[in-house]
Amino acid sequence: MKLLRVGTAGAERPALLDTEGVLRDLSVLVPDIDGALLADAPALDRIRAAAEAGELPALDAEGQRVGPPLGRIGKIVCIGLNYHDHARETGAEPPAEPVIFFKAADTVVGPNDTVLVPRGSTKTDWEVELAVVIGRTARYLESAEEGLAHVAGYAVAHDVSEREFQIERGGTWDKGKNCETFNPLGPWLVTADEVPDPQRLALRLWVNGELKQDGTTAEQIFPVGEVVRYVSQFMTLYPGDVINTGTPAGVALGKPEPKPYLRAGDVVELEVEGLGRQRQEFKDA
Amino acid sequence: MKLLRVGTAGAERPALLDTEGVLRDLSVLVPDIDGALLADAPALDRIRAAAEAGELPALDAEGQRVGPPLGRIGKIVCIGLNYHDHARETGAEPPAEPVIFFKAADTVVGPNDTVLVPRGSTKTDWEVELAVVIGRTARYLESAEEGLAHVAGYAVAHDVSEREFQIERGGTWDKGKNCETFNPLGPWLVTADEVPDPQRLALRLWVNGELKQDGTTAEQIFPVGEVVRYVSQFMTLYPGDVINTGTPAGVALGKPEPKPYLRAGDVVELEVEGLGRQRQEFKDA
Repeated sequence: MKLLRVGTAGAERPALLDTEGVLRDLSVLVPDIDGALLADAPALDRIRAAAEAGELPALDAEGQRVGPPLGRIGKIVCIGLNYHDHARETGAEPPAEPVIFFKAADTVVGPNDTVLVPRGSTKTDWEVELAVVIGRTARYLESAEEGLAHVAGYAVAHDVSEREFQIERGGTWDKGKNCETFNPLGPWLVTADEVPDPQRLALRLWVNGELKQDGTTAEQIFPVGEVVRYVSQFMTLYPGDVINTGTPAGVALGKPEPKPYLRAGDVVELEVEGLGRQRQEFKDA
Repeated sequence: MKLLRVGTAGAERPALLDTEGVLRDLSVLVPDIDGALLADAPALDRIRAAAEAGELPALDAEGQRVGPPLGRIGKIVCIGLNYHDHARETGAEPPAEPVIFFKAADTVVGPNDTVLVPRGSTKTDWEVELAVVIGRTARYLESAEEGLAHVAGYAVAHDVSEREFQIERGGTWDKGKNCETFNPLGPWLVTADEVPDPQRLALRLWVNGELKQDGTTAEQIFPVGEVVRYVSQFMTLYPGDVINTGTPAGVALGKPEPKPYLRAGDVVELEVEGLGRQRQEFKDA
């Protein structure tokens, strides 16, 4: 299923994009798409049955904003340097074990919302990523298979990054990852049953129409199931938590000088195979 | 005012500790103590007026668990190496600007709840801290005075840390800061009007009755108002966000070998002047 949330920011309504491409209203069945719903298999079954029986009312999509496909996000765990090609371009050794950093849930916006270049920023960068949404509490998992079994679904994430704040201002990467609007998410949360192999997804990102990232999750150093298993050794993952699993090569940081960092007026488009497409206009904060 | 939340985990009820030391029920006035309440000056005024008029019903404290004094916490921003004496003991240079890392809100437990030593941990460490609770949205603030004006109140925080996960496992410090139960908070949220100078508070921590940390916020490299101003340049702070402002000297990491890291059975007690006292028994995860 392709679950989404439409409406004004903070007042989104749960919806489903059916197999015919028609938007269906889920608010008749569930209050929101969130961790509680993802942990509730009978509720998900009711949605599926209602969709298949054609019982869900159509929703007029005309002029409707698409919000992030998940409400009440818990934490967002991010995996750094998780693609062989991206590690190479940044000059970093491939990490021996996953690199973890955080984005605050309040950085999440809809897939087509405006992204703000922070004040004082000269190095705002793009990163297309496969986001994993947790559906069951994950704690000290023992295998990558178990890790995958705790995934409710997948979405496109844009892990917008400010490289000076991230790398040159002391402390951890978190400083350059948590500016407001820095995590467009969506358009859809695609349930895991529709993504049979998360390690065979193409990821692409364009800036002002020019293709900048053209990767595949096959390049991930630590695949999704292993990432979930690994993270669960250090922290408990709850339904509604998100993991941004890293970005492939092609970010501005990896380009020759002068690096083409983002500025107000730039337009970024990105997609992950089967998970939909985002488009953001950048403006000054 | 001393605001707190009592009851079983996840079902705490808002309360006030009055000037006579009597616990008063606030659920007659407000649904919870959270960011929405802290941003609502008239609601806080109503609580204050009702307390002064003796209109709040007493709450039977007998056998009641004290929860964290804040519900629906947004993000927890932590400042690393923010005390001159602690930077010295860890052998680190005092940072040129604040070091930022994160704790997930789901690590928060009550002040006297059990803390779990993670599986595989050999370096679980203590850190008494002054926590700052944000009351107004803070975005690109211009001065430390403005920073202080965005603080709703203060609390004791225990920034429990696993040093191997934090330092020796690659990536950022976040890996050793987000284990479950790693952020006891409370007992009280003391409103800012009762803390005229947050830079003159004694902090103390004992392990099994032995005094380990005996510091003062006067040793903070970056004082509270400056920390809030600084953080607001990199991310937006919202009502209900928390900043853990760093720990003074005396942690296990700073001791000679063999360093006295925590194990199941250890009891840690900690307090910040005027903000109350915590006591945790450590158990294995």
